[in-house]
Amino acid sequence: MGDRYANFANSGVGRGVVKRLGLPDPPRLRRHRPGDPLTNGPVLLGAADGGRLAGPVGKLLEAAGVETTDTADEQVKYGALVFDATGITDSGGLRALYDYFHPVARSLMSSGRVVVLGTPPSAAGTPREATAQRALEGLTRSIGKEFGRGITSQLVYVAPGGEAAVESTLRFLLSGRSAYVSGQVIHVGAGNAPSPADWDRPLAGKTALVTGAARGIGAAIARVLARDGADVIVLDVPGAGDALAGVANDVRGRAVQLDLTAPDAPERLAGHLIGLDILVHNAGITRDKTIARMDESRWDSVLDVNLSSQERINDLLLERDLINQGGRLIGVASIAGIAGNRGQTNYATSKAGVIGLVQSMAPVLAGRGITINAVAPGFIETAMTAKMPLFLREAGRRMNSMSQGGLPVDVAETISWYASPGSATVTGNVVRVCGQSLLGA
Amino acid sequence: MGDRYANFANSGVGRGVVKRLGLPDPPRLRRHRPGDPLTNGPVLLGAADGGRLAGPVGKLLEAAGVETTDTADEQVKYGALVFDATGITDSGGLRALYDYFHPVARSLMSSGRVVVLGTPPSAAGTPREATAQRALEGLTRSIGKEFGRGITSQLVYVAPGGEAAVESTLRFLLSGRSAYVSGQVIHVGAGNAPSPADWDRPLAGKTALVTGAARGIGAAIARVLARDGADVIVLDVPGAGDALAGVANDVRGRAVQLDLTAPDAPERLAGHLIGLDILVHNAGITRDKTIARMDESRWDSVLDVNLSSQERINDLLLERDLINQGGRLIGVASIAGIAGNRGQTNYATSKAGVIGLVQSMAPVLAGRGITINAVAPGFIETAMTAKMPLFLREAGRRMNSMSQGGLPVDVAETISWYASPGSATVTGNVVRVCGQSLLGA
Repeated sequence: MGDRYANFANSGVGRGVVKRLGLPDPPRLRRHRPGDPLTNGPVLLGAADGGRLAGPVGKLLEAAGVETTDTADEQVKYGALVFDATGITDSGGLRALYDYFHPVARSLMSSGRVVVLGTPPSAAGTPREATAQRALEGLTRSIGKEFGRGITSQLVYVAPGGEAAVESTLRFLLSGRSAYVSGQVIHVGAGNAPSPADWDRPLAGKTALVTGAARGIGAAIARVLARDGADVIVLDVPGAGDALAGVANDVRGRAVQLDLTAPDAPERLAGHLIGLDILVHNAGITRDKTIARMDESRWDSVLDVNLSSQERINDLLLERDLINQGGRLIGVASIAGIAGNRGQTNYATSKAGVIGLVQSMAPVLAGRGITINAVAPGFIETAMTAKMPLFLREAGRRMNSMSQGGLPVDVAETISWYASPGSATVTGNVVRVCGQSLLGA
Repeated sequence: MGDRYANFANSGVGRGVVKRLGLPDPPRLRRHRPGDPLTNGPVLLGAADGGRLAGPVGKLLEAAGVETTDTADEQVKYGALVFDATGITDSGGLRALYDYFHPVARSLMSSGRVVVLGTPPSAAGTPREATAQRALEGLTRSIGKEFGRGITSQLVYVAPGGEAAVESTLRFLLSGRSAYVSGQVIHVGAGNAPSPADWDRPLAGKTALVTGAARGIGAAIARVLARDGADVIVLDVPGAGDALAGVANDVRGRAVQLDLTAPDAPERLAGHLIGLDILVHNAGITRDKTIARMDESRWDSVLDVNLSSQERINDLLLERDLINQGGRLIGVASIAGIAGNRGQTNYATSKAGVIGLVQSMAPVLAGRGITINAVAPGFIETAMTAKMPLFLREAGRRMNSMSQGGLPVDVAETISWYASPGSATVTGNVVRVCGQSLLGA
């Protein structure tokens, strides 16, 4: 799916036209290719006094071969600005953010990274500390809107005791894997997380199932999980046979044709499985109408495909112990599930339900060593969005901090980060893959 | 502050022009005048089987003199659609929402109201119930975007045991007081709340202090609290003397001139007070620049006025027992504090901190019978927004479900709802007064 405007704006002639006319100027985003370094340039690692993360983070960056410094140099262009804000215990201490970011705000490379590390407000020792830690979100979201040029900005809350579990998240955020993720707040819980033997194939030895995998985002998820080492089973409705076989062929995996809403679907699916490490509930449909014009089948089918069937499958597979210890359940929500959308009462309700599923199951599954998380895509270039009316399509594409739509691979990379063994303490998250879309709650 | 376009679009000639050209069509919003009935028409009260709120809500509506029915009639235009969704225990049960809303979706009057009542997902008995209750948010937000004509749509989570405390919130949401509040999720906690003797003067006998009260939103807050019966002390910086005296005169209250950032300000303020029932921290400043161009005084002054001084004052007044039992602390956050904003790293950080203050202090203060909440204004017509560049101003005005900016009185009404004795179990909320702005997190 091309973004012809972005291609034009990045061409030799186009660049001049765009500049002269003051048109939106979508940058080429840095996306991950296996073997790429984590960042394009050195990391400036700062910290407020008394922080507990700069030490471990500095060590893991060094071990990962990333050039890291704690002293700003005007002459240097940085690949990433990483700031440990866990030492900030009151609002006066927030000044450390200004002191760190102000001098280097123009020193980030294109597609550079801003990551601020904090303590979850709920884990802070005092209301003053909780207040200051919560305030970090205003900074990281503003920076995401200010810096432009494909630079992303995130806030990562690391629970006390989670210092050793932050590597997979930091690698994801620094790398080109998170090209279209910005303005997000991510939670890393307490505990340890195993390091994959090879960070370029973190899913080696894992079995994954991806639903709705015949095309679009689902096919991209299957391909990225396979690239990252997983054995992938792809599933779609019987009607999608040829396309599904093509994806199965690409990923050298098994194809399962199954209508997930059939009453016996969970049982039949269980029959195909020995044990899953990664289950990605990507299958989803839209049946748009205002609620006044919506017939009941549109409500029922969207709720059943997007939410209820997922619950039935999770429950049966968990009951039968078919999700392995260390398993990963991953859902696909949507910005519509966060902000609501005209003509999508059914879809938005189902996707808000996916968020509820993640939030309610995370504590239940923690005892079994299983995580559950979701992505919430914004405007992603697919066959579906290509059919949108011109104005809506262009508004969706441009109204975000990247001035462009995302690609299916961006959603897939985010899912692969959740799936990594290194993300063992990442649970209960709903991360938007939306280029920091202006559309929100 | 006029919205000249809205006045034009609602004039006899303007209405025709707007229709023919397909221009945005901002409806005239119903706003509260003392003595107004709660709604302009009957309330259709629906419920999913097994709900625990339709009963008490039906009784309180009747007692309030509101015509209420539980049977939809095609011939009737409703003032409000109120649905008790607490009986929904799994995603299949969400179908009750469709069954209720589909036939009557076109039967709401202009400036009508949609209120869905649910159980907080965290208080649900099972993950399935929590998921379904969380899904409600997708519905209410979508309806807010779909219905138009000044109709608002909210989700109210009522904790089990809070059934008798819902009246003040329901009155606020049904009435013209909440004209510019839509797409919000409000939490009512467990416990009882006293009913004011007179719902038109719920603050009678209460003492309130409003900071930054010389003009704009602060002046409107002072006037609405006084209208609702409170004795109001208005506070602003010494330079605002005349304007402040004018507001004090209007509300027949006392004026205090004080720089809240002075080191001795909390102490001096305490000297003016015997005991406060309502403290509204409205004072706030902006000093916009990108962080690259921001000098340190812009950072420090915004953080100190908007956040740190508030913390110092709260802490001293609480320590000295100058906030009465049943007291109300109310902050003013901002959409920028939720979503971040270009050129406002300082402001957004301070306003995100106000949200953190509310969330971290609410549990601490609950033991003393004191609530803490905040409003987050969107585009409000003030002298400040009148100075914005044309394009930004019009975008801010139109990009919300009301197709217009809000008025200072809309923020003030929301604050008066928090301040009501009837809102005793409403704490830890951050409610946006933004007409369901598209701009979000």
